[in-house]
Amino acid sequence: MPGTILAFDTVSYDGETDEVVLIDQTKLPNETAFLRISDTAEMEAAIRRLSVRGAPAIGVAAALGLAAAARRRRFAGREAFDAWFSEAAERLAASRPTAVNLRWAVDRMERAARANPKAPPEEIGWLLLQEAKAILGEDIAVCRRIGEIGLGLIHDGAGILTHCNAGKLAAVRYGTALAPVHLGAERGMRFRVYVDETRPLLQGARLTAFEMLEAGMETTLLCDNMACDAMKRGWIDAVFVGCDRVAANGDTANKIGTSSVAVLAKHFGIPFYVMAPTSTVDPGCAAGKDIVIEQRPPEEVASLWYRERMTPEGVKIYNPAFDVTDHGLITAFVTEYGLVRPPFGEGLRRIFEQKRAGGAF
Amino acid sequence: MPGTILAFDTVSYDGETDEVVLIDQTKLPNETAFLRISDTAEMEAAIRRLSVRGAPAIGVAAALGLAAAARRRRFAGREAFDAWFSEAAERLAASRPTAVNLRWAVDRMERAARANPKAPPEEIGWLLLQEAKAILGEDIAVCRRIGEIGLGLIHDGAGILTHCNAGKLAAVRYGTALAPVHLGAERGMRFRVYVDETRPLLQGARLTAFEMLEAGMETTLLCDNMACDAMKRGWIDAVFVGCDRVAANGDTANKIGTSSVAVLAKHFGIPFYVMAPTSTVDPGCAAGKDIVIEQRPPEEVASLWYRERMTPEGVKIYNPAFDVTDHGLITAFVTEYGLVRPPFGEGLRRIFEQKRAGGAF
Repeated sequence: MPGTILAFDTVSYDGETDEVVLIDQTKLPNETAFLRISDTAEMEAAIRRLSVRGAPAIGVAAALGLAAAARRRRFAGREAFDAWFSEAAERLAASRPTAVNLRWAVDRMERAARANPKAPPEEIGWLLLQEAKAILGEDIAVCRRIGEIGLGLIHDGAGILTHCNAGKLAAVRYGTALAPVHLGAERGMRFRVYVDETRPLLQGARLTAFEMLEAGMETTLLCDNMACDAMKRGWIDAVFVGCDRVAANGDTANKIGTSSVAVLAKHFGIPFYVMAPTSTVDPGCAAGKDIVIEQRPPEEVASLWYRERMTPEGVKIYNPAFDVTDHGLITAFVTEYGLVRPPFGEGLRRIFEQKRAGGAF
Repeated sequence: MPGTILAFDTVSYDGETDEVVLIDQTKLPNETAFLRISDTAEMEAAIRRLSVRGAPAIGVAAALGLAAAARRRRFAGREAFDAWFSEAAERLAASRPTAVNLRWAVDRMERAARANPKAPPEEIGWLLLQEAKAILGEDIAVCRRIGEIGLGLIHDGAGILTHCNAGKLAAVRYGTALAPVHLGAERGMRFRVYVDETRPLLQGARLTAFEMLEAGMETTLLCDNMACDAMKRGWIDAVFVGCDRVAANGDTANKIGTSSVAVLAKHFGIPFYVMAPTSTVDPGCAAGKDIVIEQRPPEEVASLWYRERMTPEGVKIYNPAFDVTDHGLITAFVTEYGLVRPPFGEGLRRIFEQKRAGGAF
């Protein structure tokens, strides 16, 4: 879709300058700006201030950032490289604690470096870039596959409610929750998309509404507290959300408010689907209570997008970035290996075995 | 509580100048300003722009506004007065459609005028002022009684979640949902109050947080989508909300998002109480589907308190001011005549018979 933001990947690599190119998501929807990043400290800052956000996107961005820095820096030898690399990787992986993709992508980069212990720094930079590009390519393929499977869950014209942004802006090209919509758009289908604005940072109002309008959808913005009313009125056929970490039992961390939508969907008998690349499933985490939830600064809530303060000084502010949706509220996970229905422990294990065995999706 | 906003009634009457004095709620919490209003057109504008809001407060304000205008205007005779009065009353009653108190208070003023068909305009002005002051006095007494009964539902130190502002700023002195907290404060009790910010107009963040801090409560602000997480963590012992219109079967219109909180409370087994002066109960309205829901301008959602637009042009925006909570989600109503538990049709009828019989509360 040339001329629109949809023509650009959310995260990409400029091979001529060895820079990572990001759509700066703090500027949307009022301005389409790009950030060029060449070192890991800059990437860490970009991730922390949410210039790039969304579990799959930050994984890809961190991997490309490590590769760019590895190629641009000069090292006295392999030992110096290794010392720098492990520290930079650790800092990047810790920049946001909840999404497992970030750790997963950084771990893949570390394994790639360790697999070639004798390679000199110049060669390691090239190897790391290949690995990061593989992660990026897989993200596109995985999201497209999730879109294909998700599209089978809805009919043309369906009403879909989504929370936060798990669209192309949260990944590289198709997104997770919104991949079925983008794929459907390519095929001339049209959905009614209901977008929770998603306080405090308004990823729904700023990013999802923008992306869905560009995809030609009938797009309706709701304050988070209006989703219940929209469901009651019969406007919503299905809820599609992304996820930041899925525990082995199916408990799912995603943007704060997701669990609320899940409770409402259950109350109204509306199917609630979580689009989950297997890179967001964490078999090492038994249940939701084991997921670390990032707490963010109170100013995000108090001052409405960092402008005038809208609440008195002295008030306590609770500002978790994520909440955990109990697996009992989830109808199914859509992974690149197929739909996983309850019991989720068993289903997710089966998917992982398929993946470990190198099965194609 | 001298020196704080709590020392001033939300709506009051200056007998020396014949003006209604309102705390201007569009300015809170950053500025404490008062509006002085002397005619009905100004009062209608103040109600529409939410300088005064909250079902009980707008009823009292409309009644006092009619009285002030009746006293300040000059009329050629009673006929001229009657013509002016019925038009002004109708316009005021229509300024917000959902809250029944407004219509109820205006109707009372009209009955007072009709009850004295021979009184000259100067005398009618005085009679109307007495009626409006009676409505104001009853509001204080009714809210205090609701506070007393509500206080019996919670223990010192309890965690109370509330949505929007049904506090003193929504009435004259005690409020409805927050009356138990204010009364408890007078008695040295302390509660943990969790405040939904209440998008789009942030009555929770701006008004309830302010009022609860002034009352000395431990006050925690939540984005609307965080209430689910707070409930899951066990922080909430009870939900207290106000209402704008209660149908005969107990279905309740209140600030948009209230129904969402009710579904969540039911899911987590938390009692959900609606504080309802009988003036907000509408026996002429059979069920929630018969309640007219006010739709407000999309800019309230799009531009975050009328500042920079935060969502792309072209998006549809759903902005109902209220939603309807099904009676099945409500644990009990707290009225000035006592607690009403299910079945609500029967219980509300009983309360009304008591009231019609002139029973004291």
